[in-house]
Amino acid sequence: MSSSDIFQSEVLGTMVLVLLGGGVCAAVNLKRSKAFEAGWVAIAFGWGFAVLTGAYIAQTSGAHLNPAVTLALAIKGDTDWGDVPVYMGSELLGAVIGAVLVWLAYYGQLHATLNEPEMAKQKTSNPGPVHGVFFTSPEIRNPVQNFVTEFIATFVLILAIVTQGLVKDADGTVGLGRMGALITALVVVGIGLSLGGPTGYAINPVRDLGPRIVHALLPLPNKGGSDWGYAWVPIAGPLAGAAAAAGIYNLVWG
Amino acid sequence: MSSSDIFQSEVLGTMVLVLLGGGVCAAVNLKRSKAFEAGWVAIAFGWGFAVLTGAYIAQTSGAHLNPAVTLALAIKGDTDWGDVPVYMGSELLGAVIGAVLVWLAYYGQLHATLNEPEMAKQKTSNPGPVHGVFFTSPEIRNPVQNFVTEFIATFVLILAIVTQGLVKDADGTVGLGRMGALITALVVVGIGLSLGGPTGYAINPVRDLGPRIVHALLPLPNKGGSDWGYAWVPIAGPLAGAAAAAGIYNLVWG
Amino acid sequence: MSSSDIFQSEVLGTMVLVLLGGGVCAAVNLKRSKAFEAGWVAIAFGWGFAVLTGAYIAQTSGAHLNPAVTLALAIKGDTDWGDVPVYMGSELLGAVIGAVLVWLAYYGQLHATLNEPEMAKQKTSNPGPVHGVFFTSPEIRNPVQNFVTEFIATFVLILAIVTQGLVKDADGTVGLGRMGALITALVVVGIGLSLGGPTGYAINPVRDLGPRIVHALLPLPNKGGSDWGYAWVPIAGPLAGAAAAAGIYNLVWG
Amino acid sequence: MSSSDIFQSEVLGTMVLVLLGGGVCAAVNLKRSKAFEAGWVAIAFGWGFAVLTGAYIAQTSGAHLNPAVTLALAIKGDTDWGDVPVYMGSELLGAVIGAVLVWLAYYGQLHATLNEPEMAKQKTSNPGPVHGVFFTSPEIRNPVQNFVTEFIATFVLILAIVTQGLVKDADGTVGLGRMGALITALVVVGIGLSLGGPTGYAINPVRDLGPRIVHALLPLPNKGGSDWGYAWVPIAGPLAGAAAAAGIYNLVWG
Repeated sequence: MSSSDIFQSEVLGTMVLVLLGGGVCAAVNLKRSKAFEAGWVAIAFGWGFAVLTGAYIAQTSGAHLNPAVTLALAIKGDTDWGDVPVYMGSELLGAVIGAVLVWLAYYGQLHATLNEPEMAKQKTSNPGPVHGVFFTSPEIRNPVQNFVTEFIATFVLILAIVTQGLVKDADGTVGLGRMGALITALVVVGIGLSLGGPTGYAINPVRDLGPRIVHALLPLPNKGGSDWGYAWVPIAGPLAGAAAAAGIYNLVWG
Repeated sequence: MSSSDIFQSEVLGTMVLVLLGGGVCAAVNLKRSKAFEAGWVAIAFGWGFAVLTGAYIAQTSGAHLNPAVTLALAIKGDTDWGDVPVYMGSELLGAVIGAVLVWLAYYGQLHATLNEPEMAKQKTSNPGPVHGVFFTSPEIRNPVQNFVTEFIATFVLILAIVTQGLVKDADGTVGLGRMGALITALVVVGIGLSLGGPTGYAINPVRDLGPRIVHALLPLPNKGGSDWGYAWVPIAGPLAGAAAAAGIYNLVWG
Repeated sequence: MSSSDIFQSEVLGTMVLVLLGGGVCAAVNLKRSKAFEAGWVAIAFGWGFAVLTGAYIAQTSGAHLNPAVTLALAIKGDTDWGDVPVYMGSELLGAVIGAVLVWLAYYGQLHATLNEPEMAKQKTSNPGPVHGVFFTSPEIRNPVQNFVTEFIATFVLILAIVTQGLVKDADGTVGLGRMGALITALVVVGIGLSLGGPTGYAINPVRDLGPRIVHALLPLPNKGGSDWGYAWVPIAGPLAGAAAAAGIYNLVWG
Repeated sequence: MSSSDIFQSEVLGTMVLVLLGGGVCAAVNLKRSKAFEAGWVAIAFGWGFAVLTGAYIAQTSGAHLNPAVTLALAIKGDTDWGDVPVYMGSELLGAVIGAVLVWLAYYGQLHATLNEPEMAKQKTSNPGPVHGVFFTSPEIRNPVQNFVTEFIATFVLILAIVTQGLVKDADGTVGLGRMGALITALVVVGIGLSLGGPTGYAINPVRDLGPRIVHALLPLPNKGGSDWGYAWVPIAGPLAGAAAAAGIYNLVWG
């Protein structure tokens, strides 16, 4: 397909992914939201169904929505290396737009939370509820540990994606399709429940970088820093984990 | 299909949608319900599976169940403009009947809650638990913000619906079918978890208007006003968001 | 298929349905269970996936598992009236065995709970946690209201079942099959979340009667009465609701 | 397929199963995890989607991931008895590797929890939160009762697996495939919700034994004993339950 088809599809799909994913963080973290303190089950299903919705919308381009997926599919040979830049660029742009839409949808809740007195005292080293709407932060700040966790979580995600199509369904279905989108979404719910505890499971570089850029640019009161010192972990960990999973795939089934 | 086929199917489907959707609000909001205070995860899955059940029952008419869906499919060209009135009328009638059935199923709980002393003091500007059984209310009352949130949430819903069939499954499946009904239902769970926090996510004009009419007419003690001042937001926001999504579809994939 | 094929399949399927359904009530209600107080979301998904598991196991006989389903399919014309007795008998026997297995699986938790001092004082009119493992009880005891709630909830369930196959999937799939079992299970989750609050949603005569018989017979200490005065409601309500749904089906789509 | 194909597929699949399954126990049990105290619903869905992910990855070898499944499929006749050793050996090795990955992913949380003063006082007879990351423990310690519970829970799991393919879907699909993996995963969610309360539902010998070995070997401070006295129950109970289910299958449908 043409670059502009990829671009349109991946921008819209990743936009919806980050809008719903950032949305559930806002819904659960921010005061004056009906879902306030709905808990980790809400977060995990929210992100999983964000993947489902975005993947469904972006079917024509294969619904990567994630540079780690793009990298792995290029290593596997399903995606042309020449298409990688347009995929990754579209994904980042979609993530930026999605984060802006979260800000619009939760404008009242964001400002109500940020205008509370304790917000003026928050520090980058101890991120507050609004930070969690835009980017991930580790519970225990240790770059090596955090990298390892993101590596492992993304490794699982990518292994589940690249092994799709190993066995054809009786109707000949391979690739994602609607069933594949559903299962991938539930895998993401599972990764969130199981491996999200330490770092908040970025498992997708643009899911973290896009909204972090938006956080840095938006004129929010008391917003604190955008924690750029940590920003490399949710980029490097997922890309390395994806490369490892694709490599194992090529070794075992390639 | 004939208008009377559409009518029967959409009335029954939307009736079940609103019965189960209003039901879960009653289950979680009202005292002396076994699901009292079951939380936002219950609400989001309850509404999602309400969509699943209604969509399944109304398959023969395409299971719109929502004027925003009807409008979008007409703009896309899947539904005849001439059928739009019968779809929308059936949807509203089904929603009204569904809300009456909620009242019957939760009669004891509704009256037990309304007869409590504090109910006599509730105000329209601060809706109580029984209001939430019938119609949506924003957490922060600001018409422009609330409109934007409903617009965005419905935009996502409709984009996921109109892009169905872009890629055929290997078995040739397009359109909704059973798999499509399931995925649409889970998309609605996701929208509830992610974008329901500020306004309670009507994302469907009749889901809000139908039960609001029933609330206004039912002889409930201490029921308070039916908040008609807000009623235009969950009508206009979803319709505008649906039109925007269908327009983008026509632009990108049309 | 032969009566003995129906018998074997329905006994096993209903046994598993009631084992898992009664199991989740035990898991959430009884002390010294890891799932103690896991909440209504656990109950609703537990019963829904109990339906999924039982329906899956009993595929060869069409997986009725419920006299309300059998009655409706006979009215619709899918099941021979001559097979109705063997279906209903097998369903009741399966439910009895399933309840005995709940007792075995939760033997320690049941006895630990029943041996607590406050159990000696429980009354039939205010059932305790162990009653909830075996049979349903209304939150507000009013036979007409409780009948209406069970009628409405079963009406929804049956409408969703009888309309299956109205529209063939593109691959020609009709009837239950694996997709139908999954969707029916999620419909049951939805009914539990939405309409389970007032009466605990029997929506199946043998799901209530079978375990109630077992409760009456088991030598449990401090078990209290088996509330036979209420026992007709979860039989009559579901059967009446099922007949109404099948009647409407025949009227609209028959 | 060749032994080395089985080996690679089952090692990777079981590794992911135990990584995600142990992961959700860590996520919910350990302090300084974002999912701390997320509750039993999180545990049950976490383990179910762990099965989904592992089953999906190991499709080429039929995704046993569990000696109880291997035993049952050998009794049923789907798996050659000659392949049983390689299946079971791969499953155990995968479980060991998965438990090591849980340790790496939750390194910070594990050590933070173990370094708390009260950890020094824990006893094998009253296992603490870190034990629950690696192996199951009964709430009421009674070997016969615990064996019965594991027997019953595994019986249900295996009955749902061996009856797959009894009825072909209209598209001819039999065996697991993607739909089968999804339904089996949801059955596991259901078993966890319904029958997990007394013993923590091993229902898989290597899911318990593999991580228990890792717990015994890892140099963790204050880790306490590995409770080897209980270790036979989650091995013998599942294997016996699986044999019973396969036997009933052969009797009824064989």
